[in-house]
Amino acid sequence: MNKQTRIPLYEALIDYKNTKPISFHVPGHKSGVVLNQQSQSLFQELLKIDATELSGLDDLHSPEGVIKEAEKLLAALYQVKESFFLVNGSTVGNLAMILSVCGKDDVILVQRNCHKSVLNALKLAKVRPVFLEPYYNLEWKVATGVSKEIVDRAISLYPNAKAIVLTYPNYYGMVYDLKSIINLAHLKNIPVLVDEAHGPHFIIGEPFPASAIQLGADMVVHSAHKTLPAMTMGSYLHINSDRINRDKVKEYLQILQSSSPSYVIMASLDLARNYLATYHRNDLEYLRQEISNFKKELSTIQSIKVLEYPESLGDTLKVTMQSRSKLSGFELQKRFEEKGIYTELADPYNVLLILPLLKENQDYPLAEASRKIKELLEEIPYSPIEDKFLIRTGKISELAIPYESLSNTENEVIPISEAAGQVCAETIIPYPPGIPLLLMGELITEEKVKQLTQLMNAGARFQGGSFLNSNQINIVRTSY
Amino acid sequence: MNKQTRIPLYEALIDYKNTKPISFHVPGHKSGVVLNQQSQSLFQELLKIDATELSGLDDLHSPEGVIKEAEKLLAALYQVKESFFLVNGSTVGNLAMILSVCGKDDVILVQRNCHKSVLNALKLAKVRPVFLEPYYNLEWKVATGVSKEIVDRAISLYPNAKAIVLTYPNYYGMVYDLKSIINLAHLKNIPVLVDEAHGPHFIIGEPFPASAIQLGADMVVHSAHKTLPAMTMGSYLHINSDRINRDKVKEYLQILQSSSPSYVIMASLDLARNYLATYHRNDLEYLRQEISNFKKELSTIQSIKVLEYPESLGDTLKVTMQSRSKLSGFELQKRFEEKGIYTELADPYNVLLILPLLKENQDYPLAEASRKIKELLEEIPYSPIEDKFLIRTGKISELAIPYESLSNTENEVIPISEAAGQVCAETIIPYPPGIPLLLMGELITEEKVKQLTQLMNAGARFQGGSFLNSNQINIVRTSY
Ligand SMILES: Cc1ncc(COP(=O)(O)O)c(C=O)c1O
Ligand SMILES: Cc1ncc(COP(=O)(O)O)c(C=O)c1O
Repeated sequence: MNKQTRIPLYEALIDYKNTKPISFHVPGHKSGVVLNQQSQSLFQELLKIDATELSGLDDLHSPEGVIKEAEKLLAALYQVKESFFLVNGSTVGNLAMILSVCGKDDVILVQRNCHKSVLNALKLAKVRPVFLEPYYNLEWKVATGVSKEIVDRAISLYPNAKAIVLTYPNYYGMVYDLKSIINLAHLKNIPVLVDEAHGPHFIIGEPFPASAIQLGADMVVHSAHKTLPAMTMGSYLHINSDRINRDKVKEYLQILQSSSPSYVIMASLDLARNYLATYHRNDLEYLRQEISNFKKELSTIQSIKVLEYPESLGDTLKVTMQSRSKLSGFELQKRFEEKGIYTELADPYNVLLILPLLKENQDYPLAEASRKIKELLEEIPYSPIEDKFLIRTGKISELAIPYESLSNTENEVIPISEAAGQVCAETIIPYPPGIPLLLMGELITEEKVKQLTQLMNAGARFQGGSFLNSNQINIVRTSY
Repeated sequence: MNKQTRIPLYEALIDYKNTKPISFHVPGHKSGVVLNQQSQSLFQELLKIDATELSGLDDLHSPEGVIKEAEKLLAALYQVKESFFLVNGSTVGNLAMILSVCGKDDVILVQRNCHKSVLNALKLAKVRPVFLEPYYNLEWKVATGVSKEIVDRAISLYPNAKAIVLTYPNYYGMVYDLKSIINLAHLKNIPVLVDEAHGPHFIIGEPFPASAIQLGADMVVHSAHKTLPAMTMGSYLHINSDRINRDKVKEYLQILQSSSPSYVIMASLDLARNYLATYHRNDLEYLRQEISNFKKELSTIQSIKVLEYPESLGDTLKVTMQSRSKLSGFELQKRFEEKGIYTELADPYNVLLILPLLKENQDYPLAEASRKIKELLEEIPYSPIEDKFLIRTGKISELAIPYESLSNTENEVIPISEAAGQVCAETIIPYPPGIPLLLMGELITEEKVKQLTQLMNAGARFQGGSFLNSNQINIVRTSY
């Protein structure tokens, strides 16, 4: 019998619930008895399995029973050495990954367009990060992955690097030559940590890209809640080689996650593993047909373009529409929302949809959605998009001040025009390209000032940079 | 109108659900459509509000809408300057509290019998902790709080301490003279951080003890999931004075919690605040009557004693039964479980129950429980408990090695008899008294060896101390 049909933690919780236990323990809702009246219909059932570390229900922080079993099934499915359920998102996965491989002042190579949890981990660990700029896709107008060449260069410059941290795929489902990069790193025995938050379903195989685990990454984080049917905050962490100190990983997961992890989220992680493990060929056929029909419908709309992946390699669950009108991606997103269609993300050019990983027995209103989108955009005239942004990438760079000194400095807001030569006190990410232009602690060069000004003039949007509106920037006082 | 009857975040989620949105965003279950068939009845409804940062649903990490409103209602209820919803338990509250007030090598005074998340925070922050031993209640046989005298002594010894970290109440609902301690600390402008995980309901007032907030603590953590009807992992953090740097607190909460916080947990925090705010006098009367009846029934059982708080001051929701037979607390707990009665905690002498914070309209099987307990214990003969343990407390102590060096050392397992003069490489907590006897990084003195041996001979139980079975202990190799 295929053990993957089992759902050990979920089953134990159902058994527990069916015994109708009398609770004199936490949580305070006591299996849903103590509850606001108006919320009963929604919460009551699920609260019966919002349990705690009772006999038979094991303990996430030192699993020996049903949680251990559930994690073993997870590791078996992904074919890794050890897997962990996370209840604090891929955020805690990234923190534990990085904190477990390096300490203060260690060099670590980091893909520059990473999630903020990666940057936070670097800061917590007080490492010496070396940032690698990704390339930029001119058609999609987004940053993708790093090249083999830049990694090669970085490894020669920093042969003592303790790890390399990559994001694969990018938010839009685009992948890159991760295999060659892993090979390069492993030649020098440098562990490769991959934030594969958006790719837990890649092990299904074609048409999905290869998973970072299959490509040999040493440690991999998966947001099970993003593309599998896990509840929000449910993630997985996988250890895939002996380059990783497992005890340290466990130690940080214990430090950084609640001592009362949610059984509801853990049960949903067990269910999500089972869902993926029982995803069959006919499900995949059905899904491909549904998505293909959906994209075909969208492709008849003149004021958007449904983007195709370079060399057809990317995540089939993601559909990126690029504007072919005067409307920006943000404006498109807003109009969709008014029709009750909620998208994942917008940037100045694009709107990104994440489609459901449907099984054959599940209906999803894709036809309704494409019909509504057509109606919405019918009247919008075609117009080609202009390329206003000059994007240069390919750099390798370090911070100007170590994190430890940074935490003891005072900041000052000055005109951008006077900022060259100063150290930036905030992280500024322009869209496009979605690559941080300036990181907290980085030197503001003449060139960065020029790029920033150009981007602002061209109408880029920014994350961070709270004073850009008044042509100012937050810098570190020189007396550090 | 009393605004506390509103539940802004919960209401926004219900509105969102009622529009029947088409989701092209995370989470992957798409409002519960993508789901294992067997789990539908349990999960389907609640997943409709397992949403993400969509328009109208605000963003926990920079709240401006319904989450901000919900947090403001929370702060108004507790009468503090600012309150935060936590989705990673009181664990993240303790981490953020401590990391935000002190940095590397800062002295911080810490009640020794604290939750492990406090010890983890000290380690992460690499501070120089000074541990204060709590006193020990001879009747209850558990550690309670610290005395005003020891705090006074510690402040004179360490006038530059950056904070004092206390646990109030203890696990058993016992309180102590927190007010005097806060006054002492404030004389030297030292902020008082209180882990009040078990006391979020204290603001109801008598018969509950005063809340740490009312007593003037500067920052307070509440496990809303422990005694209020919030889901597991739902907690609150309150800032109650200007001694606290709020920006730093926010920064650490952002670093240490998922960038996709669970809306289900956040909604339950909003509902729990509303539940508490609408807890009326008649509810309290009903609750007191229910608890009093329950305890009266239990008090007729000869083989247990229902403990009363010293000076009648303690948490009414907690009921501690002390064994008056040959059965240990652990054995009692196990027998209760066999009858479907799940308790919170056992120690060698006691079993602890946490009762529900019932409202007038809620039934709880207390009579059934007391009947079952009576049946269970009927045949057990009375026998007085023996006092085998010699407990000495009242010490102030520091670590022998700073955390930073500790992380670079190797360990060795040696016989306990040879351990005097070595540095302990693990934390060992004997029950009783539930106070760590040895902390990781602490010097093993002759006296500690003697105490450890006495406790082992008397049959104490230990948390940590993996090698005690073979009369060995894990120490730091001397070459550090
Ligand atoms: C690439 C990437 N990594 C990590 C994270 C953090 O994951 P979580 O939100 O599950 O904590 C995200 C979330 O958006 C992400 O997009
Ligand atoms: C006193 C105390 N503080 C903090 C915590 C940690 O809280 P949580 O489990 O909500 O993360 C606990 C949990 O048991 C506790 O008892």
